[in-house]
Amino acid sequence: MYDLISTPSVVVELEQVTENLKKMDALNRTYGIRVRPHIKPHKSVYFALEQLSCGARGITCAKLSEAETMADYGIDDIFIAYPLIGEDKMERLGRLMQRIRVSTEVNSIYGAKQLSALGERIGKKVAVLIEIDGGLHRGGVPPYEGAVAFADSIRDLPGLEICGLMYYGGLIYAETTREGYEAQTKREHDELVGTAELLRAKGYRMDVLSGGNSYSARCCKYLEGITEVRCGNYIFNDVATLATGFAVEQECALRAVSTVVCKMDDHHAIIDAGSKTLTTDLCGHRPGYGWVVGHPEIRITKLNEEHGFVESDEPLPFEIGDKIAIIPNHACVLPNLVDKIYGIRNGRIERMIPIEARGRYL
Amino acid sequence: MYDLISTPSVVVELEQVTENLKKMDALNRTYGIRVRPHIKPHKSVYFALEQLSCGARGITCAKLSEAETMADYGIDDIFIAYPLIGEDKMERLGRLMQRIRVSTEVNSIYGAKQLSALGERIGKKVAVLIEIDGGLHRGGVPPYEGAVAFADSIRDLPGLEICGLMYYGGLIYAETTREGYEAQTKREHDELVGTAELLRAKGYRMDVLSGGNSYSARCCKYLEGITEVRCGNYIFNDVATLATGFAVEQECALRAVSTVVCKMDDHHAIIDAGSKTLTTDLCGHRPGYGWVVGHPEIRITKLNEEHGFVESDEPLPFEIGDKIAIIPNHACVLPNLVDKIYGIRNGRIERMIPIEARGRYL
Repeated sequence: MYDLISTPSVVVELEQVTENLKKMDALNRTYGIRVRPHIKPHKSVYFALEQLSCGARGITCAKLSEAETMADYGIDDIFIAYPLIGEDKMERLGRLMQRIRVSTEVNSIYGAKQLSALGERIGKKVAVLIEIDGGLHRGGVPPYEGAVAFADSIRDLPGLEICGLMYYGGLIYAETTREGYEAQTKREHDELVGTAELLRAKGYRMDVLSGGNSYSARCCKYLEGITEVRCGNYIFNDVATLATGFAVEQECALRAVSTVVCKMDDHHAIIDAGSKTLTTDLCGHRPGYGWVVGHPEIRITKLNEEHGFVESDEPLPFEIGDKIAIIPNHACVLPNLVDKIYGIRNGRIERMIPIEARGRYL
Repeated sequence: MYDLISTPSVVVELEQVTENLKKMDALNRTYGIRVRPHIKPHKSVYFALEQLSCGARGITCAKLSEAETMADYGIDDIFIAYPLIGEDKMERLGRLMQRIRVSTEVNSIYGAKQLSALGERIGKKVAVLIEIDGGLHRGGVPPYEGAVAFADSIRDLPGLEICGLMYYGGLIYAETTREGYEAQTKREHDELVGTAELLRAKGYRMDVLSGGNSYSARCCKYLEGITEVRCGNYIFNDVATLATGFAVEQECALRAVSTVVCKMDDHHAIIDAGSKTLTTDLCGHRPGYGWVVGHPEIRITKLNEEHGFVESDEPLPFEIGDKIAIIPNHACVLPNLVDKIYGIRNGRIERMIPIEARGRYL
């Protein structure tokens, strides 16, 4: 099936992508929640449009350059889930605000003042969500009273429009059981909705409560009251999703395709996917650097930049020249390494999908 | 100094690059060895041409797509240090051989037969080095008698021309002392030169003995008798080079520039360089994800995709909005993540350097 694919490369099963997207959208709609997917796993216009056609309410980007690229292709409702800092970024955000509906987040007085100055300069308030620290301590103000105090401190900035709250519950990725994922999801709900209630009582508009990740968005029956989830990884899934039981092998739509280039003996082979294809990202739930499709018992024990070290207790079922597909530990970092992905449908290459928003220097 | 640089981004100190290149070339010439640098750390035409102007004898690539790109810009003497496997690669290698002087390596009968068939088809023998396993077991035949037996097994293939040997002494990166680096370099010398002697005695031409890495090429007084070193990382250096004492901070020419986007408290900050800028590559000699220039005591303890977690026992000397430069653990994987690098000279941006040979899907 991979005969025509030059390696190392990245392929995506397009039918499976559509299924993954529809499933997540339907699940969340049941609880009144819309999906605003984070495009960080794909950085591609093709997949962003597919997400919108499967029900997404706009998209989420991490970088201004990603949002600019998506806007260039006509996507007109974008949330930038990152604290934008710096005059260069303000200048560009201002230009983007003239073109499309864009909002961002704020988690410091410094950032709020920059954004407000921009809003005043261009005569259009900057729509922001206040970031609440979901426990990872990577930014954000404390929930409840901490968030109220922060909101009060930026309330009078004339160029800002506080529209709601944003939350990233990254601690969920340290859990290992369904009970743990659900408990973290309930925590996310309580802190997000509870903080919004305090703020509403003080007269703040809380139109957007943005939470969710690829685990909690699957436990969304506990998230009622929030308005949007920013799940990203669910479009492709990966070894982490597999290992936690949130997906089965077939639902992992993104794979690295690699050629066996050497066999050291019956139990050890070298493939042409190394750290420049698979990255050195580990999965907390499973050792090694990926999951060989159809052969989860085979181990990828080490990566050099262009070499993957493969071994197995049983004799390896591969010979030099064979092509194998690997589900990566962490799908989100693979498309970022290539210019184009092979899009596969019904076992054939349907199209080459450019990764337009990768590799930007800002 | 980084005022005009949007972050996160990658910058290179151009004067330092030239110094690094000239120093390595001069050192090796003393022992009759030429540098054929591996372009994997930069994948850029600008830096490849700089290497040639600083004395390099051609260049080394890992991928056919890299060699094709370099040939497109007029570089006409390229060694592809990777076992090329697959009909698609044969087809392209054939086209490349019509344009420039190109050689590659072979480490299996399977690969040798493919290359020979190509040579017969295009009426031009494929120049190959036999790869000797330098101890890493990532490909290559055993030194001495093992290499002789392999050479004999492919000697009569009509489309091949055996020109010498290639060796990658990757075990050197597990050493931690100068004595260890020197011992591995002596081993590299002995296995490479000793194997070549056996082969010469049987009538093989051994014009090219290709060895060297960024550590052993610095211990090249032990390498006399080999003809070329394929060092790559020496162009930039990184935390690994620093930690081993082979370079000082100033000689680390490649840096990630990042903005402080949040301060959680006096001792904890978040920067906008995460795993999509610095990668998750670790350095065996030092914990954390990079070396903050001028502040080696500051720790980068964790990376999310667009967040770096910075901490220090003393109060951090940074405020939100400040830009900091980080020497990465492993320089070779950074330019691969971006389309362009900022080239800095005398504290000013001199040029944007495109990374032409990155992101290729084959």
